[in-house]
Amino acid sequence: MTNNTRWIGVDWGTSNMRAYVMDGRDQVIATLRSDRGIGQLAKDEIEPALLALVSDYLPADLVTPVIACGMVGSRQGWTEAEYESVPCEPPVQSETVTAPCRDARISVRIIRGVKQEKPADIMRGEETQIAGYLSVNPKFDGVLCLPGTHTKWVRISAGEIVSFQTFMTGELFALLAGQSVLRHSMATEGWDEEAFTAALSDTLSKPESVAARLFNVRADNMLSNPSPIAARARVSGLLIGMELAAARPYWLGQEVAIIGSRGLSQAYRSALANQGVDPQVTDADAMTLAGLKSAFMASKETAK
Amino acid sequence: MTNNTRWIGVDWGTSNMRAYVMDGRDQVIATLRSDRGIGQLAKDEIEPALLALVSDYLPADLVTPVIACGMVGSRQGWTEAEYESVPCEPPVQSETVTAPCRDARISVRIIRGVKQEKPADIMRGEETQIAGYLSVNPKFDGVLCLPGTHTKWVRISAGEIVSFQTFMTGELFALLAGQSVLRHSMATEGWDEEAFTAALSDTLSKPESVAARLFNVRADNMLSNPSPIAARARVSGLLIGMELAAARPYWLGQEVAIIGSRGLSQAYRSALANQGVDPQVTDADAMTLAGLKSAFMASKETAK
Repeated sequence: MTNNTRWIGVDWGTSNMRAYVMDGRDQVIATLRSDRGIGQLAKDEIEPALLALVSDYLPADLVTPVIACGMVGSRQGWTEAEYESVPCEPPVQSETVTAPCRDARISVRIIRGVKQEKPADIMRGEETQIAGYLSVNPKFDGVLCLPGTHTKWVRISAGEIVSFQTFMTGELFALLAGQSVLRHSMATEGWDEEAFTAALSDTLSKPESVAARLFNVRADNMLSNPSPIAARARVSGLLIGMELAAARPYWLGQEVAIIGSRGLSQAYRSALANQGVDPQVTDADAMTLAGLKSAFMASKETAK
Repeated sequence: MTNNTRWIGVDWGTSNMRAYVMDGRDQVIATLRSDRGIGQLAKDEIEPALLALVSDYLPADLVTPVIACGMVGSRQGWTEAEYESVPCEPPVQSETVTAPCRDARISVRIIRGVKQEKPADIMRGEETQIAGYLSVNPKFDGVLCLPGTHTKWVRISAGEIVSFQTFMTGELFALLAGQSVLRHSMATEGWDEEAFTAALSDTLSKPESVAARLFNVRADNMLSNPSPIAARARVSGLLIGMELAAARPYWLGQEVAIIGSRGLSQAYRSALANQGVDPQVTDADAMTLAGLKSAFMASKETAK
């Protein structure tokens, strides 16, 4: 096969991995996906897992630089890339950490995460999305919302991450939808905007009631058999409403941009629109790629 | 074997079953336990599951009355015992429903659950504990708190259930401790009263922040490796604090009694004591048995 690979960017989280094979003009040659996340790999399985995914794209007689972000840099990952402390720029530029490699065809650098001492908080992976966003929007001053399993709200000023707060909203939703007594009441997909908005408004005004409102969904199901799609949107609305109540200092009167996957971003956009905020929405994967590019370009400059 | 069995009381929930074999003076001859809960049994497996547990105690030539409460009376149970609506006395007296039996040695009656239309809420099993409590404390006027997977707060007046509210607090705790990213940070047992009280106070005053405070537990674990026992008590305190914030109208300035298992009752007792409430604590199993006795005695009178 022809082989124009110049470098490889890797987004490697707990449950899966994505590799972007890049050419010399920083264009994507191939996007490769694997479900071999860091959470399921022993230390000595990590380099082989990467090679299994990308080896077809490695030129034989060159060292291909690999830039990686995410849980691959945690203590349980390839090598620990220690957290930078806020306030700081997203640590993609000249702050990466070299990972030990056995295979001479690759050299691997890992992007550090970001920590906050008080209240205790951490991110790994989101800092790269933030770097990507700031590379495209260098003058952005405001708040980034990165919805996901662990949704992050991040204050950005003068190109720095000033402070942030993580909410377990996405993981709570997944546990309730998949493992709790509510699984019998909720559809696995589908959306009901009206049910979402009503539930959102409910916990925005009475966030303390969420554990009771969740059981109402179950009781309604037993007493009147309502739509499982509405129940799904309602549970989402209850949890996001509670989050917005706590995150109010992050969005009230602020310029907010959302970086996320399409469905979840739309739910947050709709929720914020209900509160008079009109956030810009940007695709998370595109921002990850942009952040990895920033890191690669910085590493070239460092190497000069 | 000698056989003095007069009747059998059964507490049959989603995940397990307990049978009390009673003599003619309403004393317990034997307490039998099984993990064959209603949740795992098909319709035609229900009667055989009961017989497998109690048949050694059935006199051959008599019909032994069986009184059952819990999910055995749900649509997925033996036969549906429809809910009574609040306000109502706990429906153990002459409100039971006959379940069809193949075996001539038993006749089975099931205690109805209780429902509330608005906000939608249901109980099955707790009504029997409440009946038991009222049989021992007939003049009680106040609020019963029944902590468990789905904790119930119940207003009692003039012997009636006036209204109630269910919180998914216990199920949320079990999901977070067993299935979430927090499982790595939390001990499976043990208690730290100081961590519990601090977390309780935190979400009592800022209940909306619970999804963020939960992630703080994870971040603390990554940054400073604190005690997993303290983390366990902290998660419990965060969730119970949120519940108490919402249940305030139930306990503030009220006479409160707790009906529950020992460990959980103590956590709720401690939480309420922090708020200046001094609840009486009563054992849930003893109250279930007392409620089943009330139902059996009422069924004898009905039969006269």
